[in-house]
Amino acid sequence: MAQVNDHAVSNGIAAPALDLPFPDKPEIITANLLKLTELASNPRTRFVFRNLITKLHEFVDETSLTTDEWMSTIQFLTRTGQTCTNIRQEFILLSDVLGVSALVDSINNPLIGTSTESSVLGPFFTEDAPEVEHGDSIASEGKGEYMYVEGRVLSTTGEPVPNAVIETWETDENGFYDTQYSQRDKPDCRGRLRSNAKGEYGYRAVVPVAYPIPGDGPVGDLLLALGRHNMRPNHLHLMVEAPGYKKLITALYPEGDEYLSSDAVFGVKKSLVVTYTQVDDEAEARKRGFPKGSKFKLLNFDIILVTNEESQAALAQRAKKDANGAV
Amino acid sequence: MAQVNDHAVSNGIAAPALDLPFPDKPEIITANLLKLTELASNPRTRFVFRNLITKLHEFVDETSLTTDEWMSTIQFLTRTGQTCTNIRQEFILLSDVLGVSALVDSINNPLIGTSTESSVLGPFFTEDAPEVEHGDSIASEGKGEYMYVEGRVLSTTGEPVPNAVIETWETDENGFYDTQYSQRDKPDCRGRLRSNAKGEYGYRAVVPVAYPIPGDGPVGDLLLALGRHNMRPNHLHLMVEAPGYKKLITALYPEGDEYLSSDAVFGVKKSLVVTYTQVDDEAEARKRGFPKGSKFKLLNFDIILVTNEESQAALAQRAKKDANGAV
Repeated sequence: MAQVNDHAVSNGIAAPALDLPFPDKPEIITANLLKLTELASNPRTRFVFRNLITKLHEFVDETSLTTDEWMSTIQFLTRTGQTCTNIRQEFILLSDVLGVSALVDSINNPLIGTSTESSVLGPFFTEDAPEVEHGDSIASEGKGEYMYVEGRVLSTTGEPVPNAVIETWETDENGFYDTQYSQRDKPDCRGRLRSNAKGEYGYRAVVPVAYPIPGDGPVGDLLLALGRHNMRPNHLHLMVEAPGYKKLITALYPEGDEYLSSDAVFGVKKSLVVTYTQVDDEAEARKRGFPKGSKFKLLNFDIILVTNEESQAALAQRAKKDANGAV
Repeated sequence: MAQVNDHAVSNGIAAPALDLPFPDKPEIITANLLKLTELASNPRTRFVFRNLITKLHEFVDETSLTTDEWMSTIQFLTRTGQTCTNIRQEFILLSDVLGVSALVDSINNPLIGTSTESSVLGPFFTEDAPEVEHGDSIASEGKGEYMYVEGRVLSTTGEPVPNAVIETWETDENGFYDTQYSQRDKPDCRGRLRSNAKGEYGYRAVVPVAYPIPGDGPVGDLLLALGRHNMRPNHLHLMVEAPGYKKLITALYPEGDEYLSSDAVFGVKKSLVVTYTQVDDEAEARKRGFPKGSKFKLLNFDIILVTNEESQAALAQRAKKDANGAV
């Protein structure tokens, strides 16, 4: 706040030496903005804002956005920002339901050969997952139907990748992550394990279930206004890192879920849809550490990582297409 | 937060009966979003979101927005929302500096004949302006160089509009509105008056000065990154209402200000640029209620209002051009 003897001062940048006609018409406003954008010293900033201003103004102009609609939008965006806390990111959720997160993911992680495709990270990853040994369980007893996940971590040329760190997390049978419970004594339904010398990994878990993204904020209101459900199909999150390889953030989506093709956040890719095997053989269950008399679902999936070099080459190819971005 | 026996439930909307291929490629994400947008029951919502999704996805795709840039944008928007308080609206400021506020204003207030053009409202209007009589001052003594504002309120056909309510507000000579001081005992440099039977109005004020929009938030950071100053040229705000006429929100911009053509919020229109007359004649000063020995600047401006009918006809004409909006 100003004190009695203060005098308002500018940010130190002078009035520009540009020909800026008075913005008497909509098109002059846009033209002036584009001229001003050339003042940015960073070429990438200029390129991005030139495009942003163009698209944003086209949107307002082509929809003849009304003053009331504009004010509702301002209020919506303000509420979205104010709904964010240190454990909730409503703007990422907005980006998710508008397909922007999936689009950014898709653009920045182009498919390379037979490698495992990426998927959206989502807001439920935590740093405190416990270390689990090969064959251990990431879920405490009573958290859901038994599932065993196993496979290998491989390079695109089929070489085993030993000692890859696999973070994995999922919902319990109620459709909640551990962090969504008012009481959370310790992490549950999440763990950190490593592939062995042959690249193999394996762990006990529970069958995840479909769940809604938070519906009590502005993004929930938006989905209702758009007539869209707020469900994600059931899935198992994986984040895999190994020296020399690009970090993979993905998720596996068991087939058959009714929300598979209409995931509220557009995370499913065809190559990430997996099939469970129902195993009723008790000997198999005991072998994997489940209690006597257990049945379980078996999920077998090989994780194929790309090297840093492969990833950089693929992104460079895309960048070449967008040469303007580097001018 | 979830309790132990809760079960996650959807917002009640079923999975849509739409052909939605897995979004394996960027273009499929966009296509799926557009299909889903058709679920909205309100036709205007469908129209607006169809355009929004298209432009937003084009922006991300054409700029190959990187994951880091996307995350910075999320954080910027979150900070913008969280900078808003009951006396500060940072999202309106963002809309202002990106030209969106001016564009919405321009589209929704098309020029009609000789009528006074609109300008952006800005964030400094308050409801508590004191009533002032014809010839009274809106500024307390010592707030700046003397100015007298006078003119008539007229219809587009030249008829006087009596009893129009004129709200007016401005900065003091330090470039601050009264609300920007840490101590504000009462409103200052703002007032509410009425045109007389002949449509005439007149009041004492001070010469306003150029000032910066708030530079200590995310929008201030953005302008620095864009190499743009954050100044508004000096101006006098007016808001005029009379029964049967469309409410006019505008401002007058005295010529000669160095920031006139690069107003940080694109509020200036050519027809709103005005010329002061320097009056050194003491008799004229005394006649207008200034103290003995005073000089002052005289600002004469006729405010021309459009009727509600004229405004509706002009907007209907624009709506016809945008027929899609009503489908």
